[in-house]
Amino acid sequence: MANESLLDDLHRRWKKITLLESTAGLLGWDEQVCMPPAGQSWRSEQSALLAGLIHSELAKPGLGETLDKLEASPPADPFNRASIQEARRRQSRALKIPNQLVEELARVCSQAQPVWAHARAKSDFSQFLPFLEKIIHLKREEAAAVGWEGHPYNALLDEYEPGMDCAQLDALFDELQTPLTTLVAQSDDQKAIPTQPVGRFGIEAQKLLGEAAAKALGFRFNAGRLDTSTHPFCSGIAPGDCRITTRYQSEGFLESFFGVLHETGHGLYEQGLPEACRAEPWCQAASLGIHESQSRLWENMVGRTRSFWEYFLPIAKAMFGAELDDWSLERLTGCLHAPRRSFIRVEADETTYNLHIILRYRLEKSLLDGSLPAVELPQAWNHLFHELFGMKVPDDRHGCLQDIHWAGGGFGYFPTYTLGNLYAAQFMRAARKELGDLESDFRQGVFARLLSWLREKVHRVGRSKTAQDICHAATGSRLSSLPMLEHLRNLKA
Amino acid sequence: MANESLLDDLHRRWKKITLLESTAGLLGWDEQVCMPPAGQSWRSEQSALLAGLIHSELAKPGLGETLDKLEASPPADPFNRASIQEARRRQSRALKIPNQLVEELARVCSQAQPVWAHARAKSDFSQFLPFLEKIIHLKREEAAAVGWEGHPYNALLDEYEPGMDCAQLDALFDELQTPLTTLVAQSDDQKAIPTQPVGRFGIEAQKLLGEAAAKALGFRFNAGRLDTSTHPFCSGIAPGDCRITTRYQSEGFLESFFGVLHETGHGLYEQGLPEACRAEPWCQAASLGIHESQSRLWENMVGRTRSFWEYFLPIAKAMFGAELDDWSLERLTGCLHAPRRSFIRVEADETTYNLHIILRYRLEKSLLDGSLPAVELPQAWNHLFHELFGMKVPDDRHGCLQDIHWAGGGFGYFPTYTLGNLYAAQFMRAARKELGDLESDFRQGVFARLLSWLREKVHRVGRSKTAQDICHAATGSRLSSLPMLEHLRNLKA
Repeated sequence: MANESLLDDLHRRWKKITLLESTAGLLGWDEQVCMPPAGQSWRSEQSALLAGLIHSELAKPGLGETLDKLEASPPADPFNRASIQEARRRQSRALKIPNQLVEELARVCSQAQPVWAHARAKSDFSQFLPFLEKIIHLKREEAAAVGWEGHPYNALLDEYEPGMDCAQLDALFDELQTPLTTLVAQSDDQKAIPTQPVGRFGIEAQKLLGEAAAKALGFRFNAGRLDTSTHPFCSGIAPGDCRITTRYQSEGFLESFFGVLHETGHGLYEQGLPEACRAEPWCQAASLGIHESQSRLWENMVGRTRSFWEYFLPIAKAMFGAELDDWSLERLTGCLHAPRRSFIRVEADETTYNLHIILRYRLEKSLLDGSLPAVELPQAWNHLFHELFGMKVPDDRHGCLQDIHWAGGGFGYFPTYTLGNLYAAQFMRAARKELGDLESDFRQGVFARLLSWLREKVHRVGRSKTAQDICHAATGSRLSSLPMLEHLRNLKA
Repeated sequence: MANESLLDDLHRRWKKITLLESTAGLLGWDEQVCMPPAGQSWRSEQSALLAGLIHSELAKPGLGETLDKLEASPPADPFNRASIQEARRRQSRALKIPNQLVEELARVCSQAQPVWAHARAKSDFSQFLPFLEKIIHLKREEAAAVGWEGHPYNALLDEYEPGMDCAQLDALFDELQTPLTTLVAQSDDQKAIPTQPVGRFGIEAQKLLGEAAAKALGFRFNAGRLDTSTHPFCSGIAPGDCRITTRYQSEGFLESFFGVLHETGHGLYEQGLPEACRAEPWCQAASLGIHESQSRLWENMVGRTRSFWEYFLPIAKAMFGAELDDWSLERLTGCLHAPRRSFIRVEADETTYNLHIILRYRLEKSLLDGSLPAVELPQAWNHLFHELFGMKVPDDRHGCLQDIHWAGGGFGYFPTYTLGNLYAAQFMRAARKELGDLESDFRQGVFARLLSWLREKVHRVGRSKTAQDICHAATGSRLSSLPMLEHLRNLKA
């Protein structure tokens, strides 16, 4: 076959894989947003079947042969080259990890999650321990099957953040740790300041405000929607179909609002991938870290600025009436940054959040290489928490049992949250440098210049470059901890 | 293989087919209820891929071999025997109809639908004619591929109503035609009577009332949901997951309400199929006619009775406040039956509805056997309409262009609507005979005795018997036009 028809063959195969993946995506979205409870067990079987179909498409010898030939005489076009590399990465992972291990992991994690939920509710680590041990054992097997250099953690991290490894993470997190603990220690946990306006905020009005904000940032509702779910998320199901969710509480509107801003950031990335190429391997998010950078950028670097609220506070006041009468711009923005040490990651502010991630990264690395036996996790968690936050963890519910990630097999996922924060700050600094005064844009509810910059530098690039290369091309330097530290210090000032 | 493991093999294969079908079902539901407009073209490709996967599972030689062996020494259990028969029916259809024809039909119908919509809007049959001709040609090829006796129409009808054929339909419809035209001629099209209370009926209140009614009838919301769509429908997606829809207009609540009752009837049938067997071939609706009988029974035979409204009118009054102040029980129920000749099928009352079906059945049979060239359809339609209704069709928008069915390739579908009405009346007569006074149940909002009767006689039987055998076992006689005519005459009285 000539190169052209080999590429056609690759694209034809990938189209089928992408169609199956988008169908699996809809099953997942529906499960969290629409599905009635009694549909659960059938849905698990549907999802498992789809996963199996995707795996068998990836494992087909024909795909490997096509990739062999394409690698032997690579095309000139960089997007096609990136597609070949990404297809090989996926195919190689699919071939290396035995089906039996995939199924065993799915089975154990599915059993582990209700056990974890119960253990957390009772703050009883011993209930969860045997499952955690099994999961760690299986994740070690997965790492061994995939193969690794340096540290087994690298094999797992690579699935979420291709090109990143422990050596780079250790360096970044070492740079961050002391400045962050210093920032937190300097803060006086401004407990007098409320975290948000408290009152009665109608859910319908919250929804309208969220939609208005998503639309203003550039989210296209003819190619997307906003729904409600227990945990907010974004699902870029298919070209022309990107769905975001948030959750509402009637006592305050900021949780749902920042949920929308965060997920809109993810959604803008998905909607910014070139639609015509969506079935090609290169045409997807570069990494979870880059994905998170887009959500954090809009949520924190835009949505918590004074100029942003100069535009949105009057709109919020118009929607919620008297509930916001006493809230000046100063009072509201004063709520949005105050560092506040907390035991729980998902309640953390921008500054302390990264310490929560550093803690989890260090522990999961040790769990995976065996230097920390799972039985000693609570003790190790509490010890390290005290070192980072200067606070004594009262129980495992507020400690090592708080997150669902490990129960779901998500080892190697946590660092992408802080990578997202770092990329976001670095992108934003570069954008401000290039675009000049963004504040007057925000004050007028105009976000198009910033979005265009991100479209060009990040969204349209897809996975045709690594996360690090995207960062370098967009900002002129490799990922560094300095822009985020600068951003956090400015908040305090 | 022993019989036992052959059955296991059949069940394993059918489980996969059912999982794929339920996934295709979710794609379809989502397309009509949730999907943003820009997702349309990708969704079509997803649906086509799923259809292809289902077809290739049905066409696998292994399935045929298993069925060969099971047919050679059939199991004793009647449900297993029915499963073998149904699996063979599906497999045989899949093998007989060439893939090329399936794809061509899908392609032409997908092109034809926007053309039909445009032609209807302009009342211009000539626009639609070339597509109609192509579709008729392809449906003839389909009938030839499947094979038939008596009339090519039988090959198409069999997909919707297994066991039914033109000879039986002709006999039933001949019995119906004269009494129905007489009933309609006797009616004075009581134009003075409004079709519904007109006012301002809040959508949220309509939704609450619909949910209350569905719940009262027995629809389980932990295993189902109620949504909004342009055309109301029911999708029994999976065990534990049955979804119904309706549509709302704020000027009146009866359209959404009867939409809910109708779809709840379908939904109760789906929820009444034994959950544990849902992946076995026998465990599905016996036919579209039986399915429609369940919707019509709850909508018309229950939902339009005086006793039903003795319970629901006070609830509706409480929900809608002053808008129903002037509506007594007599006045409201007076609206629900008045025969009213109309050009449009979906606006028809219980009596004239069946004349609309007889018209379409006669025409599509002639289109299919070639005795009516497509170009002469408008003339033939208008002629027959005048014969049945005594009214002159003003234009094709009010005539042969009004329904989407033919543009979608649905030849053979229309008769199942009237079969549903006939089965519904016959079931209801038998239930009333066996259960005694149902009116006092309805007056108290109690529907459990009727539902239990339907569960036992219809729902739990699935497709283990033919529609005709279910009818005979439940009512003591073959399907007849008499119970429906009796019901319609009682309405007039």
